[in-house]
Amino acid sequence: QLPLLFIAGPCVIESEELVLSTAERLAEIAARDNLSLVFKCSFDKANRTSVDSFRGPGLEAGLEILAKVKQVTGLDVTTDIHEPGQAAPAAEVCRILQIPAFLARQTDLLEAASKAALKHGGVVNIKKPQFVAPEDCIHAVKKCEAFGQEQLLLTERGTTFGYGRLVNDMRCIPIMQQMGPPVIFDATHSVQTPGGKSTGGQREMIPYLARAAVACGCDGIFAETHPDPSQALSDGPNMLPLEEFARFALDLQRFRTLVNENSAL
Amino acid sequence: QLPLLFIAGPCVIESEELVLSTAERLAEIAARDNLSLVFKCSFDKANRTSVDSFRGPGLEAGLEILAKVKQVTGLDVTTDIHEPGQAAPAAEVCRILQIPAFLARQTDLLEAASKAALKHGGVVNIKKPQFVAPEDCIHAVKKCEAFGQEQLLLTERGTTFGYGRLVNDMRCIPIMQQMGPPVIFDATHSVQTPGGKSTGGQREMIPYLARAAVACGCDGIFAETHPDPSQALSDGPNMLPLEEFARFALDLQRFRTLVNENSAL
Amino acid sequence: QLPLLFIAGPCVIESEELVLSTAERLAEIAARDNLSLVFKCSFDKANRTSVDSFRGPGLEAGLEILAKVKQVTGLDVTTDIHEPGQAAPAAEVCRILQIPAFLARQTDLLEAASKAALKHGGVVNIKKPQFVAPEDCIHAVKKCEAFGQEQLLLTERGTTFGYGRLVNDMRCIPIMQQMGPPVIFDATHSVQTPGGKSTGGQREMIPYLARAAVACGCDGIFAETHPDPSQALSDGPNMLPLEEFARFALDLQRFRTLVNENSAL
Amino acid sequence: QLPLLFIAGPCVIESEELVLSTAERLAEIAARDNLSLVFKCSFDKANRTSVDSFRGPGLEAGLEILAKVKQVTGLDVTTDIHEPGQAAPAAEVCRILQIPAFLARQTDLLEAASKAALKHGGVVNIKKPQFVAPEDCIHAVKKCEAFGQEQLLLTERGTTFGYGRLVNDMRCIPIMQQMGPPVIFDATHSVQTPGGKSTGGQREMIPYLARAAVACGCDGIFAETHPDPSQALSDGPNMLPLEEFARFALDLQRFRTLVNENSAL
Repeated sequence: QLPLLFIAGPCVIESEELVLSTAERLAEIAARDNLSLVFKCSFDKANRTSVDSFRGPGLEAGLEILAKVKQVTGLDVTTDIHEPGQAAPAAEVCRILQIPAFLARQTDLLEAASKAALKHGGVVNIKKPQFVAPEDCIHAVKKCEAFGQEQLLLTERGTTFGYGRLVNDMRCIPIMQQMGPPVIFDATHSVQTPGGKSTGGQREMIPYLARAAVACGCDGIFAETHPDPSQALSDGPNMLPLEEFARFALDLQRFRTLVNENSAL
Repeated sequence: QLPLLFIAGPCVIESEELVLSTAERLAEIAARDNLSLVFKCSFDKANRTSVDSFRGPGLEAGLEILAKVKQVTGLDVTTDIHEPGQAAPAAEVCRILQIPAFLARQTDLLEAASKAALKHGGVVNIKKPQFVAPEDCIHAVKKCEAFGQEQLLLTERGTTFGYGRLVNDMRCIPIMQQMGPPVIFDATHSVQTPGGKSTGGQREMIPYLARAAVACGCDGIFAETHPDPSQALSDGPNMLPLEEFARFALDLQRFRTLVNENSAL
Repeated sequence: QLPLLFIAGPCVIESEELVLSTAERLAEIAARDNLSLVFKCSFDKANRTSVDSFRGPGLEAGLEILAKVKQVTGLDVTTDIHEPGQAAPAAEVCRILQIPAFLARQTDLLEAASKAALKHGGVVNIKKPQFVAPEDCIHAVKKCEAFGQEQLLLTERGTTFGYGRLVNDMRCIPIMQQMGPPVIFDATHSVQTPGGKSTGGQREMIPYLARAAVACGCDGIFAETHPDPSQALSDGPNMLPLEEFARFALDLQRFRTLVNENSAL
Repeated sequence: QLPLLFIAGPCVIESEELVLSTAERLAEIAARDNLSLVFKCSFDKANRTSVDSFRGPGLEAGLEILAKVKQVTGLDVTTDIHEPGQAAPAAEVCRILQIPAFLARQTDLLEAASKAALKHGGVVNIKKPQFVAPEDCIHAVKKCEAFGQEQLLLTERGTTFGYGRLVNDMRCIPIMQQMGPPVIFDATHSVQTPGGKSTGGQREMIPYLARAAVACGCDGIFAETHPDPSQALSDGPNMLPLEEFARFALDLQRFRTLVNENSAL
């Protein structure tokens, strides 16, 4: 009868102030509503559409801010890494190291993340690439296990569906759970509409897809949230407004309770 | 606070005996568990993979059997039609006329179904073609409305996803609901794997996808069911065993209750 | 060393005058440039997006006009049929009966077309549905053969690729050729962009895709053409302007000659 | 009237002997048949399916072997890089730096490759990711241009099409050419069937797709080739046997000549 895990926070570290205030608000909600919550924020957006897009403060400054989040709020934190050399420093701060979907076949990155997380008793969260069938995520799982890391999460964030659109095959959830790791549903990147001048999003679809994923039995929800998505420096069109987060999480917890009470499918 | 509508029955009229005994069992479950249930069975499978496949008893004999179901069980019945000339006789027996997905752009079929159903106060259930975006179902809706028929259902049954596989884009449900008609989720055809010697299926995925659809707010569930799918003359690999139907429906009703209590998304 | 077959004409019979003048122009080009050409035009567009769209003159009036085309120009003619009852009259006029892609799994239509064409020594041209893998076209082929019809064509016209877009998998051509029938590439429907208020098209892509298909070894090219596509009553955005047809065909014939000279792949 | 560029070689540097003997054979063919040919081989396969798969000799040893190829055969050479730090050493040896498809959105890799190639008057070859529309390759082009690199190639290697299958949208070729860079068609990775225990391939489709791409006007053909693909340590199922390479290239040159003679589409 596990609780639903929430992984939440702004897309990118825009400033220490934004990150700390958002984290404090999420920590309050988590405490009040009894949520299991890990704070997520990126120190670098390494694959932005344009070279002029905001990327973040970089590894060192970013990890300092995340360490402060941990210290101030007591929340565990997570971030995504893009090169093997980032794994060790990130694992000193982050309970969960996130492997970006585009990079989830890069053996060296999985190796570095696995070894670094293992040293700190941490977790590696592999995002299923948009170009990989759920059945084939087993290869990334086996790679991490070969490097000694058995604390894994798998995250569904949509599959390429024609051009400029993703689709969530909800069958991914039970299929990937059979590989062992808990499966997280990324509710906000799933509603991205990639392409064009900058990646768009269908924010209004977030609660529908999140409910569907929880009903399917997913173990956690990943949702990027921001106090004012219209002013966000990355992924604004698909982030959840922070003021809606509590209601969103509460709604999903009710579905989780029902799933827990009726587990056999 | 509408109840979930169930549309259920064997894929094809294999025999009067099979149809009556299945319908009686479904009627018992519906009465006991307070289900809103319409009995579905096809008199003709007009697009089987092979010319040697079983097709059913045909229009006249099939409608006689469906009329008997209605009389004996008190259930409303529905069937799918394939040519305009079948609409009028089918509407005399069936509360709902179902338009097959492949045929849902055929204007004459929509016209005949709309006019025939209108005469009897019946309903037209349009299956979203596997090759049509949810937004574009508005055209079929408008065609029926142009012919005077406003009692419509729209059914999601999967979208073409590469070769030999369908995917359910759960965003279909709220998108199609915005057009007016209630939206039904076809939980058993959605798990078909088309192609090869005969169409296969992933029966184990039915309850996952059905839960996801109900959580997304769909208005009804379509599920083909058979006392012994392994012996069924059509669609065996994707039908729900009849003995599992009550538990399946009860599970979904619990999710429906939760949705009704928390309607605002 | 077979020549490339061209199947060409306006999408729909807008008027006797338009059809005859277009057919006469195509016949002149065919005679001058030594093209093997069959004239195509539809008597009814049975699956238009909207109920207000122009559909054509209907079966009887349409076949009269096609008969006149045959008489005046000496060209063989073809049209698409939508119901089994249309097969016999159409086969009296048309050398080739075309099965629309959406309807290519309807056994009764394949049966009627096969039997009607057989009676007149004619041909059945099956369009590969947008939702069917090339390998699975074998079922439609076998259905026709079961009804005695062995003179078949298979036509590639694109596969569903996400929403609102088709893609041509050129592997279709050799795969379907291995089933026996010659394979035609439909260069104008392949560039349709289905969806929205009315189906759009990428006319500028027609010559690229047609060249690719001929280089892949296709046996014929289907291309709808109209003296003024901007004024056409159906499929304007994806038709080839009639004044470009001769140059288009000549270009493809050069590629065909090269293929014939280098047949082994 | 540019000649077709060929980029060819074994998938991975299995041994110095294999690489040198293959390169010598390709150089002989290029000299005899007047081919414009660049030799390609990978020093590291960084995203193999399994951690036990062969990866190659690594950066330093691999570049030494490629330098020897250049010296012995006079051919220009190319290889793919996976991390920014590999760009500078690779550019000292390689005329073309190849950006893997999965990594083509990683800004730092594009920056490093652009700057390193620029220093040596070299070229950056960006493979279109399997999850990106052709129109959206403009972003990678603009990133490289922002870093001063204007000598670019874009390579089409297939787009995600459901699970376990790629499809080549041949419209990619003219669409990407409009961005400025020449467009290469990767004929051997396009026939991969990703997934399962190891990535499979449809080798028999290589010449069909390559002909189609040349007919569409592509500027070059990328084809991995090996003296004995059945014994290859990577990508065996989709490589072209070396003994077939000359005939393959000659066939495509004939199509190129025809395209050059009939350029206007």
